[in-house]
Amino acid sequence: MKKYDVIIIGGGPSGIVTGVTVKNYYPEKSVLILTEEEKGLVPCGIPYIFHRLGSVEKDAMGFKPLLDAGGEVIVDPATDVNLEKKEVYGKSGETYHYDKLVFATGSLPVEAKFIKGYDLEEVYYIKKSYRYIQKLFDALKGKSRIVIVGGGFIGAEVAEQLVANGKKVVLIESEEQCFSKAFSKQLSKIATDELRKTGVEVKTSMLVEEILGKEGKACGVRLRSGEEIPAEAVILSVGYRPNTSLAVKAGLPLNIMGAIKVDNYERTSVKDVCAVGDCSQTIGFLTGRSDHIMLASTATAEARVLGYNLFGIRIKKNFMGTIAVFSTQINGLTMASAGINENTGKDANVRFMVSEFSDVDKHPGTLPGAHPLTVRLTFSPTDGAILGGEVWGGPTAAEIINIISMAIQKYITVFELISYQIGTHPLLTSAPTKPVLVKAAEKAIIMMKKANGTA
Amino acid sequence: MKKYDVIIIGGGPSGIVTGVTVKNYYPEKSVLILTEEEKGLVPCGIPYIFHRLGSVEKDAMGFKPLLDAGGEVIVDPATDVNLEKKEVYGKSGETYHYDKLVFATGSLPVEAKFIKGYDLEEVYYIKKSYRYIQKLFDALKGKSRIVIVGGGFIGAEVAEQLVANGKKVVLIESEEQCFSKAFSKQLSKIATDELRKTGVEVKTSMLVEEILGKEGKACGVRLRSGEEIPAEAVILSVGYRPNTSLAVKAGLPLNIMGAIKVDNYERTSVKDVCAVGDCSQTIGFLTGRSDHIMLASTATAEARVLGYNLFGIRIKKNFMGTIAVFSTQINGLTMASAGINENTGKDANVRFMVSEFSDVDKHPGTLPGAHPLTVRLTFSPTDGAILGGEVWGGPTAAEIINIISMAIQKYITVFELISYQIGTHPLLTSAPTKPVLVKAAEKAIIMMKKANGTA
Repeated sequence: MKKYDVIIIGGGPSGIVTGVTVKNYYPEKSVLILTEEEKGLVPCGIPYIFHRLGSVEKDAMGFKPLLDAGGEVIVDPATDVNLEKKEVYGKSGETYHYDKLVFATGSLPVEAKFIKGYDLEEVYYIKKSYRYIQKLFDALKGKSRIVIVGGGFIGAEVAEQLVANGKKVVLIESEEQCFSKAFSKQLSKIATDELRKTGVEVKTSMLVEEILGKEGKACGVRLRSGEEIPAEAVILSVGYRPNTSLAVKAGLPLNIMGAIKVDNYERTSVKDVCAVGDCSQTIGFLTGRSDHIMLASTATAEARVLGYNLFGIRIKKNFMGTIAVFSTQINGLTMASAGINENTGKDANVRFMVSEFSDVDKHPGTLPGAHPLTVRLTFSPTDGAILGGEVWGGPTAAEIINIISMAIQKYITVFELISYQIGTHPLLTSAPTKPVLVKAAEKAIIMMKKANGTA
Repeated sequence: MKKYDVIIIGGGPSGIVTGVTVKNYYPEKSVLILTEEEKGLVPCGIPYIFHRLGSVEKDAMGFKPLLDAGGEVIVDPATDVNLEKKEVYGKSGETYHYDKLVFATGSLPVEAKFIKGYDLEEVYYIKKSYRYIQKLFDALKGKSRIVIVGGGFIGAEVAEQLVANGKKVVLIESEEQCFSKAFSKQLSKIATDELRKTGVEVKTSMLVEEILGKEGKACGVRLRSGEEIPAEAVILSVGYRPNTSLAVKAGLPLNIMGAIKVDNYERTSVKDVCAVGDCSQTIGFLTGRSDHIMLASTATAEARVLGYNLFGIRIKKNFMGTIAVFSTQINGLTMASAGINENTGKDANVRFMVSEFSDVDKHPGTLPGAHPLTVRLTFSPTDGAILGGEVWGGPTAAEIINIISMAIQKYITVFELISYQIGTHPLLTSAPTKPVLVKAAEKAIIMMKKANGTA
């Protein structure tokens, strides 16, 4: 039997970051990651494997950060856990004893069993497994017509990259626009239009009724409308679910979304057992209710908090709930969102108003390379608190959204944002006379004045 | 006699923004800007006039934002003010009566009277006046050898642009490195090295003893070392001072730095009289002492607060003191700073520690177009409060510094930054497993643990 102070099951971003943080702060503790993936996971960069990176290897995360920090990694899938004996059992037959156990088992693609033909050959998912993605990468090499089902970030980004790689791609989305889980109606439309400009054939408000097969292999899809679209491969990208089979087997309770129940410090109801990242529950920042956000950035923030606090709470977790900060770039347009937008706000019965301001990301705007830049703020008409935001334009949009995220997390109001001190530079930002974020807050104040009659 | 609710003297960024804010929030109030500049000012983009923009007109700010908002502009330099009668007198002979008066008279280049020959022809300054810069622009057209004295942001950026425009430029800086007023020793060196790579001949730790003349025209400089450098024009860029002559004439008191004394809401000691921007006093965010920061971004933040509160305090000014956020791009490298760094911290007798983390601004770093990215945090070893930061690398550094600025303004500690929720994306940001800003905070925590023996 091998003994460790900390055993982490799963070698994805939250597992690695938990391990590295523990080793950083408690170098004397022994840390083991048990994983099923010899080469580690392939993380966020998966879509770019298919064109910009050009190989799976270039996106492999590996275990180097943990090994460098003095941790250990054993490739031995955990098959069972005994929470009373504090033991994990590996497929190899080995027993591992822990003082602290962390489930970091991540998420798995939702298998679209509701679509007939989901189990044909040449039907694929976007799994984070190195071996699986390598198989998909190799399989797509000889193919030229691909159908992707699901126009979230991953489906859309994969579609863009496959087209850039010379393939003909049809993307089927059930909603009116792609990206509509994360973006407002307006930004979803902008994003979907950009995706179309790349050459992806996007079919929105369409449902797939059946994956068509020939000799056991997918050869296309039939939509509910009756239309048939031929394809040599079908990629299903219709969401992810927490990977909790091992936790369930061990007897840990799940929440209503099927994620492992944890408190604000990622602790389960069983002493010395934690769960972090996609497999563990997340809570909406504003609503305080369980939600279904799976983002590496959230998972790793949780992992850092967990790592520092694994041997007693030392660093306060400063957020109770997930703001959900998304960003992407389609056809060269950067788009990002954080917190509540019109779609998610209505769903959660939030009272909100929306203000928007556009200018350019350099000043004067006549400078070569200037992009249009828009900030859209969602705020409370009651007190002006910033509840969410969207930013789109040039690449700096992806960091401006992080300013908004901090503003949400710190309960900053539009009134406070007026005295926000920023740096500006002609070649790098919008003008000091009209910093786009601040001007959006200013518009919000004027809207509130009109709505509330305050002065 | 003309009558206005609000008269603003000066049409630079702080004047315009004060006017626009007043009109946004109090559309019923009449607002006049009195200016000496027919075409408005040329703001932050001045260096780029000499190459990237290629004309003064492309950098002119104009008065359109105020006119669009319903304000008025009269080109009539104010020659005197009577604070008791509430009257401003124009050069034209006109009298203007105000209810509220705002000095937004900006700053002027420091005339280097301590250098012999400062008054020769072909000796220039970087003034924000359209006419003056046009004169300089035209004068430099026929010249090929330029000496610039002073390696602050403006001197360095002008030098870079003139070289790009095909001129031979020698830049003389008295300190060991350029940019040393804003950047740490390390970043100043990086910036100076980049400036050299552009082809500017940078001479540091050198003092100019005399500007050499021939028939009343500058023909070079002699350094204290005895070395003589020939030049067809000499540009003196050795700092700016508040433009306060009119305010002094009117009887308003100045502070120790020569700026108009104001309270946190930009109000002078005289009722209904305010001063904003470079001509008014600024206070250091951490020290609470008068400092000498002149930045359009600070000036316009002050102007927004003033505009909203001109008819009674309605919106709290959420900063007492200037964080001083700088950014620039030299030779394609973006560099930025905010708050205290090693240089300014030592000068102000601040106890601080510095942590640093470097990675890349995309993930995986093998993606085409990835830049190295470094964040350096200055923090209190006592409580971990973030006191300052520097960021350098790709263009997003200029927005990451604004995240740090918000962190400083909100008294965020390195412990809190661990649970900062951010958005990451392969093409746009550093990796979720090692977001550069958060990792720098993590390093700070480990440093504090070692230094304080805390656990």
